[in-house]
Amino acid sequence: MKHTDKQFSDQLKSLQADILKMGSLVEDMIARCVKALVKRDTHLANEVLEQENQVNQLEVEIDEICVQLLALYQPAASDLRFVAAGLKINTDLERMGDLAVNISEQAIKLNQEEPIKPYVDLPLMAEKTQAMVKQALDAFVKRDVVTGKMMGSIDDVVDDLCGKIFDDLTTVIKERPETAERAIRLLMVSRHLERIADHATNIGEAITFMVEGEDIRHGNI
Amino acid sequence: MKHTDKQFSDQLKSLQADILKMGSLVEDMIARCVKALVKRDTHLANEVLEQENQVNQLEVEIDEICVQLLALYQPAASDLRFVAAGLKINTDLERMGDLAVNISEQAIKLNQEEPIKPYVDLPLMAEKTQAMVKQALDAFVKRDVVTGKMMGSIDDVVDDLCGKIFDDLTTVIKERPETAERAIRLLMVSRHLERIADHATNIGEAITFMVEGEDIRHGNI
Repeated sequence: MKHTDKQFSDQLKSLQADILKMGSLVEDMIARCVKALVKRDTHLANEVLEQENQVNQLEVEIDEICVQLLALYQPAASDLRFVAAGLKINTDLERMGDLAVNISEQAIKLNQEEPIKPYVDLPLMAEKTQAMVKQALDAFVKRDVVTGKMMGSIDDVVDDLCGKIFDDLTTVIKERPETAERAIRLLMVSRHLERIADHATNIGEAITFMVEGEDIRHGNI
Repeated sequence: MKHTDKQFSDQLKSLQADILKMGSLVEDMIARCVKALVKRDTHLANEVLEQENQVNQLEVEIDEICVQLLALYQPAASDLRFVAAGLKINTDLERMGDLAVNISEQAIKLNQEEPIKPYVDLPLMAEKTQAMVKQALDAFVKRDVVTGKMMGSIDDVVDDLCGKIFDDLTTVIKERPETAERAIRLLMVSRHLERIADHATNIGEAITFMVEGEDIRHGNI
């Protein structure tokens, strides 16, 4: 079976569009789960739970598309790396969706009780995490290795905020032990956000793998 | 450049051996980080931190091998899926290594203070998690879809234990607020173990993708 370059190039564009579609969905889920917590909107949290199926389905579809592209077109060099990176980024996006679901589950439980303190650092951490996801996806589209490599240092800011939230909540628990369960749930939320940021960092690394990989591909196997 | 089937088949075997090498390393890290915690052996925890570089390097190498295999041999059908699954499993193994490092970091901090209670459920959870990782890797070698699909239900047992640990430690904190920080660190450890088990479940799913994928690959792209 012979395919034209045009067909192949269209398929690659379509794969990129699918990955971005999944990225948008996941970005939306992250925004919603945090809003569900901060605005105490359980309805919104439940909506995120409903989005999980969609993400899982997209993950399967994108994996299939990648494998079919490899099978049909046997791409070389940067196209091959693009598809391989697609497989990796797809996994990261699906995990981010899972984590947004985990945050929503905590939000649903937290919203049933009085808040133990105003949420300040958590929304800030969420904002930085969301920005990282957006940046990582933009860098993917633009094959922007510089931004891709920067994700690690932006991630450090998120990690610092996570550490601060840990210290604050530990203090709250010591002073008001009756808040322990809620405080721990908030801690879990901060850890989930931290992990979403880690996945954004992974996407950054996948961009480097995709763009710069050719330069280091000298070895024989 | 023309390659023989024998060469290709050797390369696939070599890729599998590399993935298993990484798997063994990660299994070892998981065993050590838990032992470091239970036996209060900070030296062991530090050894796990030193293993992280090795895992990261193996991840890069295996990704490269997968891409080179795709480029040089343009495999089809089940061989192609094996390599694509390799890319995915590689990512999961690297994350498991990260989580073992996270557990070691908590162990180092926890070992500096008195233990708040005897660790009972945590070693049990660790044992089940380790067994899952081993099973997932065995299933990968044997292309054993049945076990691969079973990982999800074994994971439920780990999730239940994680929930029990959450309840127990929340109670401890309420009764003895001065233990809050240590209890939260133990909670984090249980979450890290839970996530390692999730990655074992992902490997199970990758096995299904690898073995059964051909049956559902009918669509045109």
